[in-house]
Amino acid sequence: MSNQAQNRSAILLIHCPDRQGLVSAITEFIFKNDGNILYLDQHVDAEQNVFFMRVEWDLTKFTIPADKIGEYFDTLIGEKFEMQWRLYFSDHRPKMAIFVSKMSHCLHDILSRSHSGEWNVEVPVIISNHPDLEPIAKNFGIDFHMVKVTKDNKKEAEKEQLDLLSKYDIDFIVLARYMQILSDGFVSHYPNKIINIHHSFLPAFPGAKPYHSAHERGVKIIGATSHYVTAELDAGPIIEQSVVRVTHKDNIEDLVRKGRDLEKVVLSQAIWHHLKRQILVYGNRTLIFD
Amino acid sequence: MSNQAQNRSAILLIHCPDRQGLVSAITEFIFKNDGNILYLDQHVDAEQNVFFMRVEWDLTKFTIPADKIGEYFDTLIGEKFEMQWRLYFSDHRPKMAIFVSKMSHCLHDILSRSHSGEWNVEVPVIISNHPDLEPIAKNFGIDFHMVKVTKDNKKEAEKEQLDLLSKYDIDFIVLARYMQILSDGFVSHYPNKIINIHHSFLPAFPGAKPYHSAHERGVKIIGATSHYVTAELDAGPIIEQSVVRVTHKDNIEDLVRKGRDLEKVVLSQAIWHHLKRQILVYGNRTLIFD
Amino acid sequence: MSNQAQNRSAILLIHCPDRQGLVSAITEFIFKNDGNILYLDQHVDAEQNVFFMRVEWDLTKFTIPADKIGEYFDTLIGEKFEMQWRLYFSDHRPKMAIFVSKMSHCLHDILSRSHSGEWNVEVPVIISNHPDLEPIAKNFGIDFHMVKVTKDNKKEAEKEQLDLLSKYDIDFIVLARYMQILSDGFVSHYPNKIINIHHSFLPAFPGAKPYHSAHERGVKIIGATSHYVTAELDAGPIIEQSVVRVTHKDNIEDLVRKGRDLEKVVLSQAIWHHLKRQILVYGNRTLIFD
Amino acid sequence: MSNQAQNRSAILLIHCPDRQGLVSAITEFIFKNDGNILYLDQHVDAEQNVFFMRVEWDLTKFTIPADKIGEYFDTLIGEKFEMQWRLYFSDHRPKMAIFVSKMSHCLHDILSRSHSGEWNVEVPVIISNHPDLEPIAKNFGIDFHMVKVTKDNKKEAEKEQLDLLSKYDIDFIVLARYMQILSDGFVSHYPNKIINIHHSFLPAFPGAKPYHSAHERGVKIIGATSHYVTAELDAGPIIEQSVVRVTHKDNIEDLVRKGRDLEKVVLSQAIWHHLKRQILVYGNRTLIFD
Repeated sequence: MSNQAQNRSAILLIHCPDRQGLVSAITEFIFKNDGNILYLDQHVDAEQNVFFMRVEWDLTKFTIPADKIGEYFDTLIGEKFEMQWRLYFSDHRPKMAIFVSKMSHCLHDILSRSHSGEWNVEVPVIISNHPDLEPIAKNFGIDFHMVKVTKDNKKEAEKEQLDLLSKYDIDFIVLARYMQILSDGFVSHYPNKIINIHHSFLPAFPGAKPYHSAHERGVKIIGATSHYVTAELDAGPIIEQSVVRVTHKDNIEDLVRKGRDLEKVVLSQAIWHHLKRQILVYGNRTLIFD
Repeated sequence: MSNQAQNRSAILLIHCPDRQGLVSAITEFIFKNDGNILYLDQHVDAEQNVFFMRVEWDLTKFTIPADKIGEYFDTLIGEKFEMQWRLYFSDHRPKMAIFVSKMSHCLHDILSRSHSGEWNVEVPVIISNHPDLEPIAKNFGIDFHMVKVTKDNKKEAEKEQLDLLSKYDIDFIVLARYMQILSDGFVSHYPNKIINIHHSFLPAFPGAKPYHSAHERGVKIIGATSHYVTAELDAGPIIEQSVVRVTHKDNIEDLVRKGRDLEKVVLSQAIWHHLKRQILVYGNRTLIFD
Repeated sequence: MSNQAQNRSAILLIHCPDRQGLVSAITEFIFKNDGNILYLDQHVDAEQNVFFMRVEWDLTKFTIPADKIGEYFDTLIGEKFEMQWRLYFSDHRPKMAIFVSKMSHCLHDILSRSHSGEWNVEVPVIISNHPDLEPIAKNFGIDFHMVKVTKDNKKEAEKEQLDLLSKYDIDFIVLARYMQILSDGFVSHYPNKIINIHHSFLPAFPGAKPYHSAHERGVKIIGATSHYVTAELDAGPIIEQSVVRVTHKDNIEDLVRKGRDLEKVVLSQAIWHHLKRQILVYGNRTLIFD
Repeated sequence: MSNQAQNRSAILLIHCPDRQGLVSAITEFIFKNDGNILYLDQHVDAEQNVFFMRVEWDLTKFTIPADKIGEYFDTLIGEKFEMQWRLYFSDHRPKMAIFVSKMSHCLHDILSRSHSGEWNVEVPVIISNHPDLEPIAKNFGIDFHMVKVTKDNKKEAEKEQLDLLSKYDIDFIVLARYMQILSDGFVSHYPNKIINIHHSFLPAFPGAKPYHSAHERGVKIIGATSHYVTAELDAGPIIEQSVVRVTHKDNIEDLVRKGRDLEKVVLSQAIWHHLKRQILVYGNRTLIFD
């Protein structure tokens, strides 16, 4: 077993205007205070002149107390270099809410992973606009709330959902084939904290019925895309994509069947990256430090 | 070595309204006249109720003379079932023209295949709007014609190209990163006989600069698409697609470099399918019988 | 919805020495008796001179009663051409037993598919040498039997397993990361009816701890292989394989994690092919008619 | 265009026992002397406690002269941390020799890339044991030497090859489907400087006729592997692998044809990594910093 699994570590995700000495300054901060770097990857976007870094270090002998690291880092390094940064700790167990409709394949996949201990996450609540998947929630001992969403009650329904999320102290949301469009207002409460799976290779076939469109267009490959939800439909920062070959023998039902396997794997990989704090969002793109 | 390589065979590509007895009627026609079936694949589009078939048979003992097969087939089978069919012979060596601009990777790949005997094709002429690739044509002993295309002379230029194609008795055209849009008039002379490579995973990023658009959108996979050219830009029947993963580390130059490997392989596979008479176009889609 | 889903159909898997007139004879048999062909694919192995076919036809108007089709086909066609054939009906719902040990990912994936109706299969029993996964069986309402297998009791244990399989009237067995080697005697009861998932890209890394071996060898791609179990370990006919890229950053735990996603998808695809009667085993190889 | 393409940069590949402060020490060395880091990636092998790094920095304002960087780095950093390191400069244009036999696809692919300027490499000589590909060498204006290798003259032949390599001042060798086994003595002259392409997914099917073995085994995916040549056949450090799906319809000729496309792309990607100094060999494995 690696040290990463055993000891508490700190994870910093940083971006700032590029200039000389950034890596040196950050690594010296960690080294001088007896942190042991477990992971370091940096990237410079030469076009935009922006520096990005993910660094993770073992806290066992780190001389700055965990609850002071953010303050010290900002004072000593962050402000000087105009950094935007986020600090996470490996032993924090985030709370994830799952939104579903009627299809179970993504939900099953997510719950089998969280249940088997593959993921360090807590799933206190599943929210749906249909009652169909309640038995699955029950099997896994997870609270299930049905919030019926219609054209007419969208505002009230989202209010009810937000109250539930607040009550369960939710850190981030996964839309596991939820099939409803969230309002901008709702999304603004969870910026880069709502992960959706879209059943096409975006930006091809956004919106409804992508498998029908793919069949109609006669593509030879179909895909699935996981992304953070933003105000614009299916246009948020892409986290992960995958594809599978299809042929003229595949009718729409076959595309749906093949696509299900993509959807669940691509969604679960996005959740994995999110949980491991490997994702840095910049503009409308993601950097995945894996 | 298989018999297919040694003996002359006939290839029939058929589609017609679906009804009972089609396979039986076609295979009986071949069997009763002492043909030996080498390949048979059929497909029924249940939604549109259309029957498709590709059948190839050894002509060694076939009792109907090759130049009469079409007539006999149509009289005995085709008309009765309202079939649309095309007949090809394995020993026909088609003539392919290649249109290029300045980029050499697809051209090199095509010529190395035709030159090594991998493909049963003749390449009598390369046409370009730039002189850059003339030395490559010379190395392979292929005529090279520069036809400068501008906004103002498009009509005359296409006339000149069509004259060349006619003079060289060209069967089909490959646009190997040609970078010019052909007029509807030009395309109408070679229906389903012009193969283009587009450097994106269509229908995502049609038109110019797809790698820039892909980078801008932050996709995690890029692709290439070969298709028959139709009047609408980048919207013709897709023959083959392939993809490769990219990351945030890849700048536009990296996408271009990775994409080149896709482009040449995807274009060459489309040419292979075309040469082997494996493609049946129906509506705006292809069936690939491989 | 396609007709295939609605009406009862018959599926014939055939192989025999290749000769002229085979397709014609078979399709005429179906056509003359008012069967409507839904699927037909044939393949000739030119090296071994063997003909293979999968044909499926709608029985709605078929004039030979279902329980007489085998007899009639054999008398009129099969014997004449020295065919080996198997006949299946689309409305038969086979009974599948699942063998597991401690790992849950493949079991979860299988049960979520059978439970959601994606597969036409009944799962009456799960057998394990460990108690760990009993709660999952319970959640899905499936009988769970623990049969402890040790070096010393293998014969008795397999006798107990065979009795259970017999009692539950099992058609085929899936080893969902079972981690025990079945004896030749056991395997001989279920020829080409035991599907295993091996966590490597066979024939690379057979036997135990393939992820460790893959890491040691420094491969850049890992795989998973589903196959029918034969007397020789990990050497049976391969049904499906898939792969995923790895890098030097992936330690053994990462390979295990990435491999899990391959294993469950590859195993489930093999089960799908088996259930749809798309697999024809010949020698130690499979033909997949999909 | 990125700075990397324009300015001279230095590349350091380092490994040493892991300990705290390594990244800090290295980046401080670069920063304090006015180097601008363009690329930095590090990796710690937690099992073996080894630290690896690739770092590249712009030399425009670097205050240590290029020909002194190695000495200064070793004195100030390398010795202290027991580092093994290699230093390269981006403007060095290495000399590559290509060994071939009769097959042209890899050679064509390599020459089209070097010729188009895709690669920063010089190809002064092609060596073969057959005369077949001499015309291709001529077309590209490259010296071609035929060195006939037989069972009886292997020692003399290798002596002749080594003399040629020396005469042309060759930096590294590419075996582009050379089909001959090099002696340990020969290999020892070019440690981690001979790149081979093997036409299978190693470690499956080492040695001769892998496509025949793959067909015999009935695999559903075939592959190609590029690796550095070591004394043991097909067992050296793997640089790159890729795969493609095959079916029962593919005979051995089809596998060979599909394999060719893999071989050339996989070999060329290995050469790319080698040229960009992205490969760090440790034990029998490679780290690819791309």
